[in-house]
Amino acid sequence: MNNETIHSGGWLKEYDALTEAAILMRQKYSYAPYSHYCVGAALLGEDGKIYTGCNIENASYPVGICAERTAFAKAVSEGCRKFKALLIAGAASDKRGSDLCAPCGMCRQTIREFCGEDFPIIMIKADGAGAVTDSRIYKLKELLPESFGPENLL
Amino acid sequence: MNNETIHSGGWLKEYDALTEAAILMRQKYSYAPYSHYCVGAALLGEDGKIYTGCNIENASYPVGICAERTAFAKAVSEGCRKFKALLIAGAASDKRGSDLCAPCGMCRQTIREFCGEDFPIIMIKADGAGAVTDSRIYKLKELLPESFGPENLL
Amino acid sequence: MNNETIHSGGWLKEYDALTEAAILMRQKYSYAPYSHYCVGAALLGEDGKIYTGCNIENASYPVGICAERTAFAKAVSEGCRKFKALLIAGAASDKRGSDLCAPCGMCRQTIREFCGEDFPIIMIKADGAGAVTDSRIYKLKELLPESFGPENLL
Amino acid sequence: MNNETIHSGGWLKEYDALTEAAILMRQKYSYAPYSHYCVGAALLGEDGKIYTGCNIENASYPVGICAERTAFAKAVSEGCRKFKALLIAGAASDKRGSDLCAPCGMCRQTIREFCGEDFPIIMIKADGAGAVTDSRIYKLKELLPESFGPENLL
Repeated sequence: MNNETIHSGGWLKEYDALTEAAILMRQKYSYAPYSHYCVGAALLGEDGKIYTGCNIENASYPVGICAERTAFAKAVSEGCRKFKALLIAGAASDKRGSDLCAPCGMCRQTIREFCGEDFPIIMIKADGAGAVTDSRIYKLKELLPESFGPENLL
Repeated sequence: MNNETIHSGGWLKEYDALTEAAILMRQKYSYAPYSHYCVGAALLGEDGKIYTGCNIENASYPVGICAERTAFAKAVSEGCRKFKALLIAGAASDKRGSDLCAPCGMCRQTIREFCGEDFPIIMIKADGAGAVTDSRIYKLKELLPESFGPENLL
Repeated sequence: MNNETIHSGGWLKEYDALTEAAILMRQKYSYAPYSHYCVGAALLGEDGKIYTGCNIENASYPVGICAERTAFAKAVSEGCRKFKALLIAGAASDKRGSDLCAPCGMCRQTIREFCGEDFPIIMIKADGAGAVTDSRIYKLKELLPESFGPENLL
Repeated sequence: MNNETIHSGGWLKEYDALTEAAILMRQKYSYAPYSHYCVGAALLGEDGKIYTGCNIENASYPVGICAERTAFAKAVSEGCRKFKALLIAGAASDKRGSDLCAPCGMCRQTIREFCGEDFPIIMIKADGAGAVTDSRIYKLKELLPESFGPENLL
């Protein structure tokens, strides 16, 4: 698989749907009155469904939740615990397009609970019209190497 | 409104639907491999929809999420930010029925971000068949008095 | 005990020391580059020591920690698990004095783990010189009624 | 620097002191009544002081705090914001010695707020007498690559 294929999303037929969903989440549903940094996420379940999320802040900052974790919360609470890919789009609220936005460590740990080390995590940069202008794709093991996980406790 | 009316849920036509949803969440979707304490929540939006949630734990305990916050994350990410009631059912996983389970402080703070001081929070005790045998109803201001909230920052 | 005695702190000989410690924490150590809302806390252990804390934010907002929880983390990690009082001072960073700042729900839950229902929580308003101009004193059961706690799990 | 030097800690004169501190934290101060997994951490400030931490759990699991974050909270609240190394020792409570215990993603994000990409993170395995039998040393960039951080917001 060459770079062009990877970044055009040719390897994943739901790539465009994930992109649209994450951008919509960021632009329309994100609740970020404190940081004004809006993030959307789209999580593809093995059931073929797309579970979406946005960041939802709180006046007590530590009580807020990130977009990625919202997507996982939605999926698990709807019966899906196995996943195929996660796509993230984030940027300051005054930007129409999104930047390459990496998941925070807390979100990586959430992913770790349910996904294997090869689970793909996609960050996209999009222009105001929703066209992807740049992207990065990582495996979970590349973003959270040497991780702590369920097998340490169970 | 007398006590019987309150606890039979006669004041809220969606009471039975909320009860069923919270119990289903607890029994079927809760992911609690560490505490074995399973919680379900059902949040009624002003749009008339019921947004459900369950607790979803993590090997790194602080990374997990409670049922109530899952329900709010789902609602907000689906465009609903105004709510009419929240109902909670929780108990250890080896119990078929649920106990009166109070929301933790972190969840009360989440509610505080979106709901007014009179927002009703219902805790139900149910038998294994899903029949409510006891309940408590509180207003948010009774569970989180003298609270910190958005007006402290914005 | 009349109101004047309560608010002058006459009931607690460490009241002035707690006040000074919380104000110092807020003014000097708080790390709040995102909210610019600076909080200090001072926690009196049964061992007679004062454990101090400030809020410490994080670019990923949910990863930050509040002043009250910092104080508890310090105390417990130094061997103290029983407490006599908690005092809080908070305000926006451009204010020299502090406002009456209520603990968030997450902090109330932290207190709940280690303190009884009558545990006193003090919020002070101070002028720029550190003189207390107003205060509130609550018992834990007044700030987190009908709480979830260790006995629900253990 | 060869492997033996690295693992004997010959590169860091405070290595033994950090080891002792982390083990003591784990064995004596950790509060883990729910997971029974006890962790200690020792953080070396650029001021030469060692800031210690242990995990402190909560009946509402997400409200707890990890050992590493406790150490950072202590340091920052005591005026230290620059650091030289972090050492971690963790294992189930019925083990006298410690295992190689990796920091969770949330802790990695906490480290990210204050430390550079080459910041060393040490995990030690020790026997019941406190002798180190194995260890791993990573740079922050190896444990949290492609990270989200303050420069994304400020």
